[in-house]
Amino acid sequence: MKKNLIVAQSGGPTAVINSSLRGVIQEAMRHPDEIGSVYGALNGIQGILEERIIRLDNQFPTAEAFDLLAHTPSSALGSCRYKMPTPEKGDGQYAKVLEVFRKWNIGYFAYIGGNDSMDTANKIAEYCHQHGQEIRVIGVPKTIDNDLPLTDHCPGFGSAAKYIATSLLEIAADADVYPVKSVVVAEIMGRNAGWLTAAACLAREAGSYAPQLIYLPEVAFDTDQFLEDVRAQLEQYDSVVIAVSEGVRLADGSYVAESMQSGQVDAFGHKYLAGVGKYLEQLIAARIGCKVRSVELSVMQRAAAHLQSATDRQEAARAGEEAVKALLAGHSRMMVAYHRVSNTPYLIDFILVPLREVANVEHKIPREWISPAGNHVTAEMVRYLLPLIQGEDFCPTQNGLPRHFCLDKSVVRQ
Amino acid sequence: MKKNLIVAQSGGPTAVINSSLRGVIQEAMRHPDEIGSVYGALNGIQGILEERIIRLDNQFPTAEAFDLLAHTPSSALGSCRYKMPTPEKGDGQYAKVLEVFRKWNIGYFAYIGGNDSMDTANKIAEYCHQHGQEIRVIGVPKTIDNDLPLTDHCPGFGSAAKYIATSLLEIAADADVYPVKSVVVAEIMGRNAGWLTAAACLAREAGSYAPQLIYLPEVAFDTDQFLEDVRAQLEQYDSVVIAVSEGVRLADGSYVAESMQSGQVDAFGHKYLAGVGKYLEQLIAARIGCKVRSVELSVMQRAAAHLQSATDRQEAARAGEEAVKALLAGHSRMMVAYHRVSNTPYLIDFILVPLREVANVEHKIPREWISPAGNHVTAEMVRYLLPLIQGEDFCPTQNGLPRHFCLDKSVVRQ
Repeated sequence: MKKNLIVAQSGGPTAVINSSLRGVIQEAMRHPDEIGSVYGALNGIQGILEERIIRLDNQFPTAEAFDLLAHTPSSALGSCRYKMPTPEKGDGQYAKVLEVFRKWNIGYFAYIGGNDSMDTANKIAEYCHQHGQEIRVIGVPKTIDNDLPLTDHCPGFGSAAKYIATSLLEIAADADVYPVKSVVVAEIMGRNAGWLTAAACLAREAGSYAPQLIYLPEVAFDTDQFLEDVRAQLEQYDSVVIAVSEGVRLADGSYVAESMQSGQVDAFGHKYLAGVGKYLEQLIAARIGCKVRSVELSVMQRAAAHLQSATDRQEAARAGEEAVKALLAGHSRMMVAYHRVSNTPYLIDFILVPLREVANVEHKIPREWISPAGNHVTAEMVRYLLPLIQGEDFCPTQNGLPRHFCLDKSVVRQ
Repeated sequence: MKKNLIVAQSGGPTAVINSSLRGVIQEAMRHPDEIGSVYGALNGIQGILEERIIRLDNQFPTAEAFDLLAHTPSSALGSCRYKMPTPEKGDGQYAKVLEVFRKWNIGYFAYIGGNDSMDTANKIAEYCHQHGQEIRVIGVPKTIDNDLPLTDHCPGFGSAAKYIATSLLEIAADADVYPVKSVVVAEIMGRNAGWLTAAACLAREAGSYAPQLIYLPEVAFDTDQFLEDVRAQLEQYDSVVIAVSEGVRLADGSYVAESMQSGQVDAFGHKYLAGVGKYLEQLIAARIGCKVRSVELSVMQRAAAHLQSATDRQEAARAGEEAVKALLAGHSRMMVAYHRVSNTPYLIDFILVPLREVANVEHKIPREWISPAGNHVTAEMVRYLLPLIQGEDFCPTQNGLPRHFCLDKSVVRQ
């Protein structure tokens, strides 16, 4: 008997998470003999628990519609930050998921998300298996943070990196116009892994003087050394641009800007961070006294679909397609991952890695890709990053603005 | 005897200020019988006072070089925020400018800048005239703020408006993924005039629900009314996006976020502002208690050349060309301005307006283009704005990043 497929999106959105969704839908629709309906759950696992389920296989009459979806930022199906309890504690919820899967004749579940989502997907697959229901579950990676293990890089990262490098390039041009000493501190996302902040280095590949300094969560931050670094750069340049990760920490493990934080945590127990850029701005003003400004790249890092990396976009779509192929080939409890075959020419393979080895593991920057002084990155890092931002694939526009796809979210009754 | 032309850039940069520079240089080079050398002064009027002058007519061997310059953000010649004293008080400085003009055989001076720069240009022209030296002086408008009088709009504004509307569209897509009530406050530049903030309304033309609320400096801000507005929108929408100008003020004239400000003023005596977004974020958190985030679009508003409006770029170049034509036709102490002939089709004429009528006058939004409640804009505003963001003219790229022109700033000795 043919089974249906359900797909959902979870965690923070990216500029290409809908490319992966497109890949899943499009590939599933290529196999009408094996897959019945293609459903989407709204707001991730929450949509399954609450049976907020929509039809996806009837919303894309043309290739143009798929193309528009792929150029639309953020999670078209909505997202969630809902953490499933452990199966021992949350039996009711797992039983509910299983019940919904049975009711909707689901045989395939594709979950597009980051570390936490891979954990959720893995637990659900395990529970279903233990309760005699074979639901094949596949993870499709997604995170601008690039911190998933066992994959060369993550869908969504390349576009965020392109946005960051482009913005740094433009901010540096803007900062360099007055004949006075000045500093710009650009605060970039990344709680524990510094990949996004490291990507600022690419502005130099485009000939910019910036950023002269890069601070990452992987290296303990030393305030005195930081001020010395800034002073040394100001000797050499009128304008100094610093890229700093929101997650930089002192040697004792506390966040640099902790004193300015509210101490709030999100549903996963992560500290809610903001403000290291502003903190360093005030520090420089007080201790060095030159003109200084902080800029927070904020949500545009993950939402700027108008600056998608074509490479990232195409890979993200392929990841979705490969996920469906893997499901049909009988795989389950795996995540699609990228294996880099070569840099010149840039070539990747799509592989499968066990969900349980991905769940809750954070892949950080190797120390040897960070400069010995801990305030920049190495040439190896540049070689790693550069292929990921290649290709401009400008979004369809109308009236001078990007056109976004609007999913019909009418919930289906079963 | 042939005279030379000198051009300089002043004030805050824009995404198309180099298009105007391109227009000036290119048009000047078309008249070798009338114009000798084309010089550039580095850092505006300061570069003239300090004789930091470069050759411009030998730096563009190809049309591609000009095209690259036009896609490069920020002031290629550098800028200044230097305010000339009144001629009575600063005779030494005016005498110095006159001396430099004589020494370099300058007959034509084009100054690309905003209100303050037009004031400077006007005073210099007047001084030269009074001291028997006929230097023709022309102003080329430039300001993302769109606050110059006597011109339909200003070069630089359309691109900033396009960046703001595009970012709001993407931020709104990002904000709408979780099934919880939430607010995003987007803080947009604009000290006294709300044009940039008003441009956020264009996101709705692309089908977005955002922004539901717009607060401008032209209307006194009422904190209680604001909270009521937000609550009303939260009744209707899960996600509320608010565009707020950095310059919004209470009825008593004080800035809304004044208590959080440092009280610093720049060289022109303007208050240095930041933080109204953060302030309103904290207000909503404390008084409404929903999820809330503030985003400051910051310098990307004026620097994001990768999102230039093609209309803006072309008009800015034409403004530079028209400036040179006006100089050669014998005009002086005038500024090039735009006159809108029609909206459908969109058509503008280039006209000349007296510098003295432009200097230090701020053009604000007419009250009738703001909704009666003072928290949005009218259809008339949309009709005014829409033509200005039309056209994508994507920048040349290399290695996945925009290519920028790099001017040779070797100072010439006379």
